[in-house]
Amino acid sequence: MDASDTSSGLLDPNRIAVIGATDREDSVGRALLENLSTFDGEVLAVNPNRQEVLGMTCYDSIGSVPEAASIDLAIVVLPAPAVVETLSTVGDQGIRNVVVISAGFSETGPEGQQREAELIAVAEEYDLDLVGPNSIGIMSTTTGLDATFLQGYPPEGSLSLMSQSGAFIAAVVGWAIQHDIGFNNIVSLGNEAVLDETDFIARWDDDSETDVIVIYIEDIDNGQQFIEAAREVTDHTPIVVLKSGRTEPGAAAAKSHTGSMAGSDDAYEAGFEQAGVLRAMTIQDVFDYGQMLAGQRLPETNTVGIVTNGGGPGVLTTDAIDDSRLELAAFSAETHERLDAQLPEAADIANPLDIIGDADLERFRNSIQTVLADDSVGAVVVLSVPTAVYEFAELAELIGELQAAADKPVVACLMGGEPADQAAERLASYGIPTHFDPSRAVASLEALADYSTIADRVYEEPAEFDVDRERAREILNQTLEREVSHLGVEAIELLEAYGIPTPDGEIVESPAAAETVAERIGGPVAMKIVSPDIVHKSDIGGVEVGVRLQEVAETYETLLDNAASYDSAADILGVRIEALVAPDESTETIVGATRDPQFGHLLLFGFGGIFVEIFEDIAFRTAPLTRREAKSMTEEIQAAPMLRGARGRRPADLEAVIETIQRLSQLVSEFPSITELDVNPLVVAPEDVVALDVRLTVDRDELSASE
Amino acid sequence: MDASDTSSGLLDPNRIAVIGATDREDSVGRALLENLSTFDGEVLAVNPNRQEVLGMTCYDSIGSVPEAASIDLAIVVLPAPAVVETLSTVGDQGIRNVVVISAGFSETGPEGQQREAELIAVAEEYDLDLVGPNSIGIMSTTTGLDATFLQGYPPEGSLSLMSQSGAFIAAVVGWAIQHDIGFNNIVSLGNEAVLDETDFIARWDDDSETDVIVIYIEDIDNGQQFIEAAREVTDHTPIVVLKSGRTEPGAAAAKSHTGSMAGSDDAYEAGFEQAGVLRAMTIQDVFDYGQMLAGQRLPETNTVGIVTNGGGPGVLTTDAIDDSRLELAAFSAETHERLDAQLPEAADIANPLDIIGDADLERFRNSIQTVLADDSVGAVVVLSVPTAVYEFAELAELIGELQAAADKPVVACLMGGEPADQAAERLASYGIPTHFDPSRAVASLEALADYSTIADRVYEEPAEFDVDRERAREILNQTLEREVSHLGVEAIELLEAYGIPTPDGEIVESPAAAETVAERIGGPVAMKIVSPDIVHKSDIGGVEVGVRLQEVAETYETLLDNAASYDSAADILGVRIEALVAPDESTETIVGATRDPQFGHLLLFGFGGIFVEIFEDIAFRTAPLTRREAKSMTEEIQAAPMLRGARGRRPADLEAVIETIQRLSQLVSEFPSITELDVNPLVVAPEDVVALDVRLTVDRDELSASE
Repeated sequence: MDASDTSSGLLDPNRIAVIGATDREDSVGRALLENLSTFDGEVLAVNPNRQEVLGMTCYDSIGSVPEAASIDLAIVVLPAPAVVETLSTVGDQGIRNVVVISAGFSETGPEGQQREAELIAVAEEYDLDLVGPNSIGIMSTTTGLDATFLQGYPPEGSLSLMSQSGAFIAAVVGWAIQHDIGFNNIVSLGNEAVLDETDFIARWDDDSETDVIVIYIEDIDNGQQFIEAAREVTDHTPIVVLKSGRTEPGAAAAKSHTGSMAGSDDAYEAGFEQAGVLRAMTIQDVFDYGQMLAGQRLPETNTVGIVTNGGGPGVLTTDAIDDSRLELAAFSAETHERLDAQLPEAADIANPLDIIGDADLERFRNSIQTVLADDSVGAVVVLSVPTAVYEFAELAELIGELQAAADKPVVACLMGGEPADQAAERLASYGIPTHFDPSRAVASLEALADYSTIADRVYEEPAEFDVDRERAREILNQTLEREVSHLGVEAIELLEAYGIPTPDGEIVESPAAAETVAERIGGPVAMKIVSPDIVHKSDIGGVEVGVRLQEVAETYETLLDNAASYDSAADILGVRIEALVAPDESTETIVGATRDPQFGHLLLFGFGGIFVEIFEDIAFRTAPLTRREAKSMTEEIQAAPMLRGARGRRPADLEAVIETIQRLSQLVSEFPSITELDVNPLVVAPEDVVALDVRLTVDRDELSASE
Repeated sequence: MDASDTSSGLLDPNRIAVIGATDREDSVGRALLENLSTFDGEVLAVNPNRQEVLGMTCYDSIGSVPEAASIDLAIVVLPAPAVVETLSTVGDQGIRNVVVISAGFSETGPEGQQREAELIAVAEEYDLDLVGPNSIGIMSTTTGLDATFLQGYPPEGSLSLMSQSGAFIAAVVGWAIQHDIGFNNIVSLGNEAVLDETDFIARWDDDSETDVIVIYIEDIDNGQQFIEAAREVTDHTPIVVLKSGRTEPGAAAAKSHTGSMAGSDDAYEAGFEQAGVLRAMTIQDVFDYGQMLAGQRLPETNTVGIVTNGGGPGVLTTDAIDDSRLELAAFSAETHERLDAQLPEAADIANPLDIIGDADLERFRNSIQTVLADDSVGAVVVLSVPTAVYEFAELAELIGELQAAADKPVVACLMGGEPADQAAERLASYGIPTHFDPSRAVASLEALADYSTIADRVYEEPAEFDVDRERAREILNQTLEREVSHLGVEAIELLEAYGIPTPDGEIVESPAAAETVAERIGGPVAMKIVSPDIVHKSDIGGVEVGVRLQEVAETYETLLDNAASYDSAADILGVRIEALVAPDESTETIVGATRDPQFGHLLLFGFGGIFVEIFEDIAFRTAPLTRREAKSMTEEIQAAPMLRGARGRRPADLEAVIETIQRLSQLVSEFPSITELDVNPLVVAPEDVVALDVRLTVDRDELSASE
C-alpha cells in the first residue's frame, strides 16, 4: 500500500469508535476505554449488549453512531470470529482507519491464518488502513491518544516508535516515563496483516512532529521494499532499529514466537547499511541513539573535544572514542593559548581537557566555550564528577546555554546519583543527553556522526551494463534441457555474457579435441573436468594446471579416470581446456550471490579459502547495488589492505573488482531464478580480474515460467 | 611489602587521629572531619594552631595525644611540605597505618617527586602501611568509617573497591547510593607510594566481609607481582577490573594524567587472563559484574534457561546469550512434560519459555521452579514486562524465594520504570540483580560463569626443561664481543640450546666451505645471507631455497652480490647452508617475545604474514607461562582451526608448538636481558616443528652485568 495516500486520521484522529467497548473488570476493552479518557477528541462506544459503558452512551453498531462517516478511527476489540464481519460494516460506513486489537489470527495456527486472509481481503476491498490484528494499540501524544490497554503513558516528544512485539512496548512505556523519554507516536504493529514498518517509516518521514523513528522488529517480510523506502526516509529522518533474532538460536526463537521465518542476519545487516538505517544491538542503545538524534544537531566532523573535572573519567572517554569511529580532536594553537590563559597551571592543556577537581562554573564556562569555538572540534563531551564547588543543576544549565549558543552537538556525563538525575531534566530541555557511563555518551555521539554521514550521502542508481542477456538465457536454459538445477564450469560463458572476464577456453569431449583446442590457445594450458556431479574438482584430481601440449591427451584420460574413481556414476560433460592465468601478484577472491527470502539476492565478496571459511571475512550487500555499495564491499573486509597492495605488492585492479560485483548484481537481478551463484576464484591481479570457475543453482520452475 | 603482616588497623581502626584537623570553611580537613562523625570509634584532632575543632579537643601534635601508641590510623591532611616530617613523628609513636590525603607529590613534577622519595624512605624506616599520598581517602562501612572529603556515603555491602582515580570514586559513591550498590571498603590509592593494588587484593582476599574486589586502574607498576598475587586471590575471591588507558590515545591521556607510563594493553590483557582477573570495559559493566558475583552462587554449567511473559524480550535475551560464552539450555524431557501439564496451550514449551502475557504469579512460580529444577539448566533469567495481573514487587519476592530454595544463580529483568526500581530492592535482598536491558543481565551472568571457570582451574608451575644454558649464554655473548645489540640467523643455535628444533646447517665464509657443508647435508639445500644489517633477507635476494650441489658455489657469490648491492656497508658474517624443510602440509607460524615495562616478557604466537600484520590474529601471554597457558594461545587465535587440520589437511603437531612456546618462555625468563626475540617462521607440520630463522635484541649492559 502506498503510504502517501494514507496520511491522516490513523495517528491524528478526531473521532474514535471503540467496537467492543465494555466495562467488564480486567477486560482489554475496559482498559482501552479507560486509557482513552485522556484523548482530546471524541470517543464513541459500540457494543450491542450494552446501553452505557463507563458513563458513555453505547451504540448498537458502527452504523448507528451519528455521522459515522466522520469517524476517523475504529478500534476493534471484539473476539476474533466477529472481527472480519465487523470490518465490512466499518468499511461500509466509509471509515478507513482501523486498529484491530483482537488476537486469534495468524499467530495461532491454520484457523487463525484463514481468518487473517479474510481480514486482508476485506481490508483490500475497502482500502482500509489497518493496524494489527494482535496489536496492543497505538498512542499519539500530541492529542493525548492512548488507544492501548497498557498501564502508563509516556511524555510527549519527537521519537516515534513501532514494534512487532507488544511486550516490548509494554516494557518501554513505564521505563520511558521514569527516564523522561518523550514520544510522538507509538504503534504496536501486531501481525502486520495490512500496514507494516515500511508504511510507517514513510508516514513518519512526512510527519513534522517526528524527528527520529525507532523500530523494534524480529523480521521484515519484504526487505527490498523496506530498503527502498528507508533509503529515501533516512535522507531526512534518522531510523534506529533494534532487530532481534539476530543469531541462529535467536532466529529460531523468533520463528516460534511470531510464526514468521526470520531472514539471515547478514541480509538484514546489508539491507540496513544500504538503507542508511542505524542498527542498535540493545534496548539501551536504541533509545540512547534515538534521544541523541532527536536532541542534537549533526556534527560537521567526527572529532570530539572532552572537558572534564576528573582525570579518570576523561581517560575512560578517550578509550571509548578510540573504540568508535569518532576521533579525539586536535585543538588549534589558538585554543591552546586561550586555555592556557584561562586555566590554572596544574591543568593539562590537552584533549581530554582536565580542568581539575576544584573547577568552578566559571572555569567550566571558559573551557567549554573555548573548546566549542574550535573549528577542529565537531562535538563536545562534558564530564563532571560531583564536587562541593557547584550543583549539577547549575552545571546542566550552563552546558545547555553554551550548547545552544555554539550550535554544536554536546553530550554530558554528570556522573553521580540523584542530583545527576535532576540535572538531566534541565539538560533534556536543551536536547542534551547525560549518562553516568561515558561509554554510553560516546556511543550516542557515534550514532549522531554516523547519521551525519548517511544524511550526506547521495544515492546513485545501480549501473546498467551492456550485456548479452540472450546468451545468458541460453546458458541458463541448459538446466531445463538437461533437467538439472546446478551448473558448473560449463556455464562460465554466462559470466562472459555479462562482461566478466574468463580465460580463453573450450569444453571438449575427446583427447584429440583437447589437443586441437590446446594448440589453438598455445602454451601450457589448464584442464578441468566438467561434471555437474563433481563440485570440488581439485580435491578429486579433476584439475591439472600447466599442462604442456604433448601431455594434453594423456591428461585428458587421467582426469576422466580420476573422475570415474571418485564417482563412476558421475555425469561427465567433458574436459575444459583453457588458457593459463599467470598467478604473478594475483590473489584469489570469491564473488557470489544467494537469494534471501526477505531481501532478494544477497551479494558476497571476500578472499578465498580460509579467509571466508575460518575468518568469515566477508562483505554482503543486497542486489541491485550501486557502484558506491560495491566499492564499500571491497573496503569493509578485514583483508582490504591486501587489495590495496600491502606487503610491498602492487595494488590489485580494484576498479575491475568493483565492476565485477556490479555486473554480477545485474545478472542476478535480471535472472531472479538464480538462487545461488559462486564465482570462485575470481583471480584479482594488478591490471585485471579473471573468473576461473563458476557454480550456480536455479529455480527451474521460475526460470521456465519467466520465458 | 607483605600484605599478610598488615592485616589490621588500616581498614578496621578503633582510634583515628586526623593530623591537620581544621574547621576552615571549604577545606579538605573540615570535610574529612565532618565525614568522620559517623565513625563508630574514636576520632582525635591534631593541629598545633587550634584548641578545638568542631567541638573536639585539638592536640598540638600526635605525640601529645593520650595513649598515642594505641592509635590505629593517622590521616594526614597537611600541606605537602609538612607531610614527611610529620610521618616521622607518627612512626615514632609506633603508629603503623597512615592515609596521606595531601597532594603535591610525584603527580606535580621534580620537587614533588623528591618529596615522594623522602616519604617512601620514612615509610620504609617505620614500616608504615601508607595509602597515598594524593588520595581522597578510605571508607569502611562496617564501622561507619568515612575518611574521605567526598559528599555521600554508600550503603553497606560486600564489594570492596580501590581506584587510582579519586574522581572515579567521587562519581561512583553518589551513584551507588542511588542504585543501592553496597560496599565494604573503598580505597583511593592516590600515588601508591607504598601500598598498591597488589597489597589490597591480598588483604581483601583474607577479609570475610569482602566477596568481590573491584578495581579501577590506569596502570600497574609491577605487573608480574600483581599477576602472582591475583592468581592466588582469584582462587577464592573474584576480582573485576576496569583498566582504562586501554587504547593508544587513551594510554597517552593516562600518561599525562598520572605521570605514569602505561603498559601496552596486550600485556594487561594477557596478565589479567593469566591471573584470573575479569576485565570489564565500562563503568556499568564493572559494577554489574561485581553485583552479580557478590549476590549469586556460581553456576555448575554455562547453560541458561529463560522464563518470560513477553516474546520480544525473550528473543533479545536469546540473542545476548548467543553473543556470549553462555548457551541456551536444552530442557529435559521431564521438564517438557511438566511444563506441558502446567501451561496453557498457547504457551510455547521451548527455551526461551514464553508463558504469555496473561501469566499470573502462579504460572511464574510453576515455570521458574520447573526450569530451576532441570539439571541441564545452570542459571535462569526471569523476564517480565509490566501487566495488570501482578505487581513487580510480588514477582520479585517470588523470584527471590524460588532462587533461595533452588540455590542456582538467577538474574531478573523486570522491565519497567518506577515499580521495577522498587522491586529491585526486594530482589537485592536475595542478591539477585535486575536490569531493564536483558543484554546487561546476560553479560553479568557471563561474568559469573567465567569466574566459575577461573575458580575451578588449578595452577601448575611452568615446566622447566633440561636446556643448555651455557651454550645459550655463549651465543648471546656474541653481542658483547661484536658490540651489537641485534642477532639474526647466526644465533639460531640459541634455539637448539633450548631444545627448539632447527634445520641442520652451518655458517660458512667461502664458496668452497659452502660446498663442503652442502655435501655433508646432502640433497638440495637452503642458503641464507647472514648479516646483522639485513633484516628482511628474502626481500633483497638474500635467500635461495632448493639449491642443488653444483649451484652452491655460484649461489654463494650471488647472495653476497645481492647483499652488497642492497647495502655495500653491511657487515656480512657469511652464508648459512642448511637442510631443506619439506613444506608438505606445513604452515608458517611466528613465536616471539618482547619485554614490557610493567609485565616483563610478553610471549606472542600467531600465523605468519598477513595473519599477524593485517588480521592482527595474535595471542599474548606473559612469561613464565604454564603448559595450559601455552596451549590456550594456540586455541585462542582465530586461525586455530588451521592448526587442528581444517580443509582436509592433517592436524599440525600441536604438542610441539605448545612445547616450543614453553621453551621460549623459559629462555627469556632465564635471560631477562633479551628485550625482543622473534622465531619467524616456526614451520609447523603434522609431525614436528622447526624454527627457520631467529632475530633478537639484548640489553647489553644488563647481559654483561648478569655475568
